[in-house]
Amino acid sequence: MKTTETIIKMIFDRWNASIASCDTLLNSLTDETLQKEIAPGKNRGIYLLGHLIAVHDDMLILLDMGEKLYPELNEPFLKSPDKTTTLIQSASELRTFWSNQCEVLKQKFDNLKPEGWFEKHTAVSTEDFAKEPHRNKLNIIITRTSHLQYHLGQLQLLK
Amino acid sequence: MKTTETIIKMIFDRWNASIASCDTLLNSLTDETLQKEIAPGKNRGIYLLGHLIAVHDDMLILLDMGEKLYPELNEPFLKSPDKTTTLIQSASELRTFWSNQCEVLKQKFDNLKPEGWFEKHTAVSTEDFAKEPHRNKLNIIITRTSHLQYHLGQLQLLK
Repeated sequence: MKTTETIIKMIFDRWNASIASCDTLLNSLTDETLQKEIAPGKNRGIYLLGHLIAVHDDMLILLDMGEKLYPELNEPFLKSPDKTTTLIQSASELRTFWSNQCEVLKQKFDNLKPEGWFEKHTAVSTEDFAKEPHRNKLNIIITRTSHLQYHLGQLQLLK
Repeated sequence: MKTTETIIKMIFDRWNASIASCDTLLNSLTDETLQKEIAPGKNRGIYLLGHLIAVHDDMLILLDMGEKLYPELNEPFLKSPDKTTTLIQSASELRTFWSNQCEVLKQKFDNLKPEGWFEKHTAVSTEDFAKEPHRNKLNIIITRTSHLQYHLGQLQLLK
């Protein structure tokens, strides 16, 4: 295996394991529990779930892999803090979005060739990318794995 | 810049940014706040800080970079859950350990040549490593960044 392929595997192992942890955790929590705050006065479980879906949806744009699946989550789960809007999505509906999105992302990620991961993502200009080659698509996976783990640590408190 | 150097930069950018986030957060919390639980009945801030130091100390062993700096943290912060032992370390002492350890790790990491990061870590056998080249030193940085982010999300709740 070439070094670049080894590295892609390392980074996707971490992403996939984080997604799997989140799946296991979500399956262990009831819809009622997801309505609870992770700590007094902090975000609710349902908000964090919607937030993760909204952030992962944005990865499709950054990776130039098509349109968002659930653009309607942008306003309530990315632009607004929790408890400032009336959520029209139920926990059950968000679970379906999450599972479907994980499938779609996996397919699209599997279809990108190794060298494609070292191409620029859509939020960096060609000029900047020439000077900063680390601002590539693979870096989006690295930073979003970090983000997912951060919120996983919080969601875990609902157990 | 070669691809492997770009990748090492990507992974260390994430590690360093996570350490910097933790520093900023710790500096914004008082010793009294660190004594509090992150959520009712959950780990205390001081436990998570000690736990992070103990886990990062173990990286020195895994990366074959020398002895642990604070082996006395192993028992109370790795082997024991919170509130099951009487902690003899104060929050102030743990802050000093954290800062010192970050310095030491940074120096040791900076001294390893790029190709060194693709050598096996100490918890994998030579035979297994031949089949699984992703079990290298760089992967330790990836997985520990994930771990740090997970607990950062929890420590953040003390704010």
